[in-house]
Amino acid sequence: MRIFVAQHNPIIGDLEGNTQKILHYIDQAKSKNRDIVVFPELAISGYPPEDLLLQDSFVTQIESCLDQIIAASEGILILVGLPRRNPSRGEKPLYNSVALIRDKALLGFQDKWLLPTYDVFDERRYFEPGQATGIWEHKGKRIGVVICEDMWQHAGYVGNTRYFRDPILALLEHKPDILINCSASPYEFHKKDLRVKVCGKAAKTLNCPMIYCCQVGGNDELVFDGYSMYVSPQGNLLQLAKGFVEDTMLIDTSAETCALTFSYDPWHDLYYALVLGVRDYFVKSNFTKACLGLSGGIDSALVACIVTEALGSENVLGITMPSRFTSPQSIKDAEDLANNLNIKLLNIPIEEPFSSFLSLLDPYFKDKPSDVTEENMQSRIRGMILMALSNKLGYIVTSTGNKSESALGYCTLYGDMVGGLGVISDVIKSHVYELSRWINKRKPLIPISTLEKAPSAELRSDQKDTDSLPEYDVVDTVLTAYVEDYLSPEEISLKYELPLDLINDLIRRIHRAEYKRRQGPPGIRVSKKSFQVGRYYPIVQGWR
Amino acid sequence: MRIFVAQHNPIIGDLEGNTQKILHYIDQAKSKNRDIVVFPELAISGYPPEDLLLQDSFVTQIESCLDQIIAASEGILILVGLPRRNPSRGEKPLYNSVALIRDKALLGFQDKWLLPTYDVFDERRYFEPGQATGIWEHKGKRIGVVICEDMWQHAGYVGNTRYFRDPILALLEHKPDILINCSASPYEFHKKDLRVKVCGKAAKTLNCPMIYCCQVGGNDELVFDGYSMYVSPQGNLLQLAKGFVEDTMLIDTSAETCALTFSYDPWHDLYYALVLGVRDYFVKSNFTKACLGLSGGIDSALVACIVTEALGSENVLGITMPSRFTSPQSIKDAEDLANNLNIKLLNIPIEEPFSSFLSLLDPYFKDKPSDVTEENMQSRIRGMILMALSNKLGYIVTSTGNKSESALGYCTLYGDMVGGLGVISDVIKSHVYELSRWINKRKPLIPISTLEKAPSAELRSDQKDTDSLPEYDVVDTVLTAYVEDYLSPEEISLKYELPLDLINDLIRRIHRAEYKRRQGPPGIRVSKKSFQVGRYYPIVQGWR
Repeated sequence: MRIFVAQHNPIIGDLEGNTQKILHYIDQAKSKNRDIVVFPELAISGYPPEDLLLQDSFVTQIESCLDQIIAASEGILILVGLPRRNPSRGEKPLYNSVALIRDKALLGFQDKWLLPTYDVFDERRYFEPGQATGIWEHKGKRIGVVICEDMWQHAGYVGNTRYFRDPILALLEHKPDILINCSASPYEFHKKDLRVKVCGKAAKTLNCPMIYCCQVGGNDELVFDGYSMYVSPQGNLLQLAKGFVEDTMLIDTSAETCALTFSYDPWHDLYYALVLGVRDYFVKSNFTKACLGLSGGIDSALVACIVTEALGSENVLGITMPSRFTSPQSIKDAEDLANNLNIKLLNIPIEEPFSSFLSLLDPYFKDKPSDVTEENMQSRIRGMILMALSNKLGYIVTSTGNKSESALGYCTLYGDMVGGLGVISDVIKSHVYELSRWINKRKPLIPISTLEKAPSAELRSDQKDTDSLPEYDVVDTVLTAYVEDYLSPEEISLKYELPLDLINDLIRRIHRAEYKRRQGPPGIRVSKKSFQVGRYYPIVQGWR
Repeated sequence: MRIFVAQHNPIIGDLEGNTQKILHYIDQAKSKNRDIVVFPELAISGYPPEDLLLQDSFVTQIESCLDQIIAASEGILILVGLPRRNPSRGEKPLYNSVALIRDKALLGFQDKWLLPTYDVFDERRYFEPGQATGIWEHKGKRIGVVICEDMWQHAGYVGNTRYFRDPILALLEHKPDILINCSASPYEFHKKDLRVKVCGKAAKTLNCPMIYCCQVGGNDELVFDGYSMYVSPQGNLLQLAKGFVEDTMLIDTSAETCALTFSYDPWHDLYYALVLGVRDYFVKSNFTKACLGLSGGIDSALVACIVTEALGSENVLGITMPSRFTSPQSIKDAEDLANNLNIKLLNIPIEEPFSSFLSLLDPYFKDKPSDVTEENMQSRIRGMILMALSNKLGYIVTSTGNKSESALGYCTLYGDMVGGLGVISDVIKSHVYELSRWINKRKPLIPISTLEKAPSAELRSDQKDTDSLPEYDVVDTVLTAYVEDYLSPEEISLKYELPLDLINDLIRRIHRAEYKRRQGPPGIRVSKKSFQVGRYYPIVQGWR
């Protein structure tokens, strides 16, 4: 069987545009003499469409898109993902389905059985679980079709949910010749490795070749990495589409294909996930230009590298906003970085508005000592300057806070937290360093001084982050163990040999900062558990 | 049967505190010679506990709370809501249950059958649907137990979901003598009326008296209004607990009780819902003092009334921050309001920092004309002043934006949107007026001039809201029809005889403002569909 895999990058809800792209790939597949063309999960709407699914007119327009695709199906079998109305009485009015279309006829739908409702997924909010597993005959071959989650439990990789049913085992009795999975599986640090195993396991169980077609692109917080695959009945990877770009794959299941040696560099993938997240946030909303504050520190340096890669140096504006507490080295580091990246840099000192605010508020502050208020004021003045440039000149502010700061609330609401998109808000501080070093290995962009100096917010004299926080490796260990791995304080203490008091203090800070994070910008999700999406905690609570 | 209904106001996750309060009510019930004491849904954890449920140690501690309650159950039947582990293999590891406890023994659990997963509810994320309907014998009577949602579909009041099963009909064959519903049903404008019908319908179907015990209190965005009920087998309301406060109810099912005439004032309820939402946000997080900007306009006037009612006038600080565009009447209106409410008022003009920013940024703005940038700057300077006072003096800023502004993005991110809590962010502008007039009928607090003048942000000369927006009654009509009722533009045009272009323009604005709302403060939910919680739309999307 000759198969065309269209690793499609849709815009959520742009039904007309997505359908035009689908029609274009159908044409391509025909011109390459393919028997089948495969699209990702919910390819017509894009994944995740969220509450657009609750609008009846949205579903109606999808039905007319489907009609256009049916009209273009002469001589080819098309598999395309879409939400469809549940024709019978069910708990929810929609199915998450793949339409099978051939020769201007809709052959039928394969509905998704297993509906993830955990982490960033809430498919039970919209969809009814599928009931029937069909087998689809095409050119004498028996094709089994599943959708994303349907194959994950079979390999043992589903958290916090244990489905009763196993669509892969259900397909076993139908003896498929080919298995096709239409997916929209978001990128996570180290997930690529897992996906190869999951595909391999399904192929081995069914003893047939397996084609995995995944959505690519950034959609708000989520990044889909693509990496569609073709896997042998023995579970070996035979072909791999590109990561982080729209791509197509030509597969011939009757041809001899050698197994690929699977290897990957997690920092490469993390970097390009962030780049794609930024690029698509801008491109899909018709913006081109970003501005950001450059403090001379590591976080803003890393973000500047990512944003410049995503948008081009001509579209990035750095602003350094020194205060009375800013060291000359910090300004030099910002300048060196801007030079290395070839981006424009403005230097706008904040002393004047800072003094103006201090004298304005002096009568109300009375004799209270200087505290975090004055630090926040500086940060907020910088936020105001960034937003003013954004408003006047049409830049989107890219936010530079990292996950470790965000976890502990070591950041200023309406200050350094301003922006349209948090670029590294799901990257812990130790990964910020790792990724920066990885970037510098390719090309030395980030000044050595930025990499080597002790982190400081420079909001008072001689300030260091470690004045208020433990060392970042301790913060990151506790943060990851508590937030990503759901370990209790006692388990963390045992596993990492850290004092329980320290752990409890950090966990209290994590919960206490919930109110800040709730107002932070959307941030690109790259970890197993992000603060920006897929994590729901009360602000006012008495647990920790 | 003599029943004690404990309309409990828990703090989410404060397991120890909630359990102490439960034990206190058990004592009270015993001292009143009751046969049964009833608590709301998830009374031990509070509703909704959200992702705290994913922490194993959280569930373990709930189990030890249950042990304490069991130890206190001598001589009385206790019905208490809690999450419990799913002992068998199921899709999810927990049930949403009511424990039935008597004479130091756990008789068993009644699990919630119908798990709402729409709007603000996401119970399928955590819970397995219950399977068995038990009947519980106590002192010769047969007691049926259901949990919140379990009885709503029976009365035809569930949206976007059609459950296969009907727990009320399932109970019918068990012929219960009494039906008890343990609930946590959030307040919505006009929902009280609905609840009486829902309870009445279940009682009539089962032809038995019905006791409805509901959580009360504010938990982040959600307000639970309480109003627990006792309903006759004929569906008549016999007893009604207080709304918006912790309360208890003594019921004797063998006594003759006259039907209550049911009536309510929706503005009274809306007002007290907002007051409770504010009060509990503060009380439950150990804050006492609020500050807010007073512009002389209707929104901040209404919020000042609500916050003063919630926290007491000694705990509220108003700040008026005039600019070169502020009219003397606005300052006078703010002063009159502060006098009427007996709250302190500061007058902090923003001219100096505004000039300072203008001259600082002048070189970068070049010859571009004055635009929304300068308007936002004024709003952000006010936000900075409020946050500085908050940081230095320990106030929480209460945000004053209404739902109509928030819908259209007629508000400044990091400006008038700053704050810990959006008090009226789910109240449309026409309701802001209605509620203000309702307040003034009780006691004239809001200056007439504030009520009568045309709305203006006063961010440039002679500005009126209607310069940028249609009249608010048109905005509110389209907003409600599109967001709450899911009507399409065409349906709205037909129903309200409004031009389609105007409607489409407003809908586009609603979607385009998504990025602002995503960073707004949590806001008290009072409508069927709030922007702050229970509504998930992509920021970057191509649908509208």
